[in-house]
Amino acid sequence: MKHGSPYGTHRVLEPLGVMPQGAWKIDNTMEICDNEILIDVSALNIDAASFTQIKAEAGGDVLKVGDIVRSIVERRGKHHNPVTGSGGMLIGTVRRIGPALADRIDLKVGDKIATLVSLSLTPLRITEITKIHLHKDQIEIKGQAILFETGLYAKLPTDIPEKMALAILDVAGAPAQTARLVQSGDTVMVIGGGGKSGTLCVYEAKKRAGPNGCVIGVSPFEKDCQRMKALGWVDHALQVDATNALALMEAVAAVTRGKMADVVINCVNIPNTEMGSILATRQRGKIYFFSMATSFTAAALGAEGVGKDVDMMVGNGYAEGHATFALSLLRESAKLRQLFEELYV
Amino acid sequence: MKHGSPYGTHRVLEPLGVMPQGAWKIDNTMEICDNEILIDVSALNIDAASFTQIKAEAGGDVLKVGDIVRSIVERRGKHHNPVTGSGGMLIGTVRRIGPALADRIDLKVGDKIATLVSLSLTPLRITEITKIHLHKDQIEIKGQAILFETGLYAKLPTDIPEKMALAILDVAGAPAQTARLVQSGDTVMVIGGGGKSGTLCVYEAKKRAGPNGCVIGVSPFEKDCQRMKALGWVDHALQVDATNALALMEAVAAVTRGKMADVVINCVNIPNTEMGSILATRQRGKIYFFSMATSFTAAALGAEGVGKDVDMMVGNGYAEGHATFALSLLRESAKLRQLFEELYV
Repeated sequence: MKHGSPYGTHRVLEPLGVMPQGAWKIDNTMEICDNEILIDVSALNIDAASFTQIKAEAGGDVLKVGDIVRSIVERRGKHHNPVTGSGGMLIGTVRRIGPALADRIDLKVGDKIATLVSLSLTPLRITEITKIHLHKDQIEIKGQAILFETGLYAKLPTDIPEKMALAILDVAGAPAQTARLVQSGDTVMVIGGGGKSGTLCVYEAKKRAGPNGCVIGVSPFEKDCQRMKALGWVDHALQVDATNALALMEAVAAVTRGKMADVVINCVNIPNTEMGSILATRQRGKIYFFSMATSFTAAALGAEGVGKDVDMMVGNGYAEGHATFALSLLRESAKLRQLFEELYV
Repeated sequence: MKHGSPYGTHRVLEPLGVMPQGAWKIDNTMEICDNEILIDVSALNIDAASFTQIKAEAGGDVLKVGDIVRSIVERRGKHHNPVTGSGGMLIGTVRRIGPALADRIDLKVGDKIATLVSLSLTPLRITEITKIHLHKDQIEIKGQAILFETGLYAKLPTDIPEKMALAILDVAGAPAQTARLVQSGDTVMVIGGGGKSGTLCVYEAKKRAGPNGCVIGVSPFEKDCQRMKALGWVDHALQVDATNALALMEAVAAVTRGKMADVVINCVNIPNTEMGSILATRQRGKIYFFSMATSFTAAALGAEGVGKDVDMMVGNGYAEGHATFALSLLRESAKLRQLFEELYV
């Protein structure tokens, strides 16, 4: 049995020398190396942008959707949409574990898992498409996939419904990173505090900041602000458009008596919220950008332009143990679990 | 005397509600608010990208360059190139300090300063253009400018030639941030360690990491590697192209016996070095991206894709006291001063 690269580069077919995600085609032979995991796949959760494109290309025809999906995997060895560049995740059962990994991981054959690395780098074979859920971005299949040594996964729990587990695993990094950032007594602002990842950040921030801390949730929508207040984890819910940097700064100055936030967590997926984040943070404060709409240069030049000595961090969706951490929140808080049931399942 | 916004928003003319940098036109009246500083300007150091565009538009004609510069400032109230979007910095003498600032800052009338905020947000009036240095991106003028309360500046020292001071002030944030990041005993890799900011990071990293630490400089150029070795501040000079993520990872693994870097500082202004930075960093290590070519999404998704739990920071060119810090390095090290004299003056 061969030994593979922990990053899966041994499966790159073309162009050679790149990482599996950057490759046009990867080797989807289902014979594993001694540090790979073989998975019997039951469902593909296709990235929303990718599935929208595929449905449009198929003119909404469910059979054509299946043809396109099959064709992508046949051509590329992975479900990596060539138009959108995005992938998705998969759900399946562990079929075989390479002997070099067997004693080093918490998985056994038969465990049901979700992969937390993108389908855009995961070797995949589809034997049969059994059902296409056009409105849920999900395809049920029979097939197999390979997880590399560094590939992230989460064991699906037995006490949490699969869909709820997937909904929270999708944003598992957010509460785990919040737990690292927030100290007791901190003033924490969560921009987009009414969204899925934002709600988890608000919840975790309140726990960490404690009774002497202050959590501020921000959303442009009244409904979000009302929900944040009703859930009770924010001290202030500010209905402000975060792209209006001055308005956000003034609103935060008002509720902090000019002290501004120690930690700002940005969870909104709209552009031009960098300067608002910067102006609302105190000198030597921290800003964590989870938003994929963040512009690196807007953040870097923005802080320098206003003389703000702040630490700005690129949101890393992965933190060790993040899946376990996120799932435990649903067990810890009945209110959070109910919210996920109502909104995200 | 009026009181202005610390960020200068009171001078924004159009569109209203944005920050001075985002504004098309700002008010360049030379009557100061009580928290502004009036400067007699002697020279404009135009951003390289901007000056190249202006020279091209002028067909290399020095008089036309002057006309374009004057026209920009007349139309916008600031030297903010409408094509490139960039500015530059200025050198001048303090003429007047608003009374609300006078006792709070270390400046007095007559001090010679360089502004460290961009010309793209600095109210400016040009009375006369006295000399245009086509090959140095510099224009000598008579004129005045305004510095807002949060505007950054550096007093020009008397013991360091002006051009050398400007060359190091341009990248003053890099060594100051390095000093914060690096702990005694750390393994530090500086990508682009042979460049101007990279050299300062290497120098500071060596000081901080100390005899039990290890500093690795990376450059694709043999000449850079030779210079790094000759200066003696690196333990290893790796001649590797950082856009080749796997090659960089393997080179760093070889010199660290697989332990990888605790801290990676990325100082190269070319794209596609995010993954190399990530793969060369140990789990829970830190990456500081100074490169303005950094892609936020490439960094965020790259780390997640390979399961790397690293802290990635957006390079902030400003850190409190960074100008004093950078200038002190030239006094501290004769070798560094000689290098700046040879290469950057």
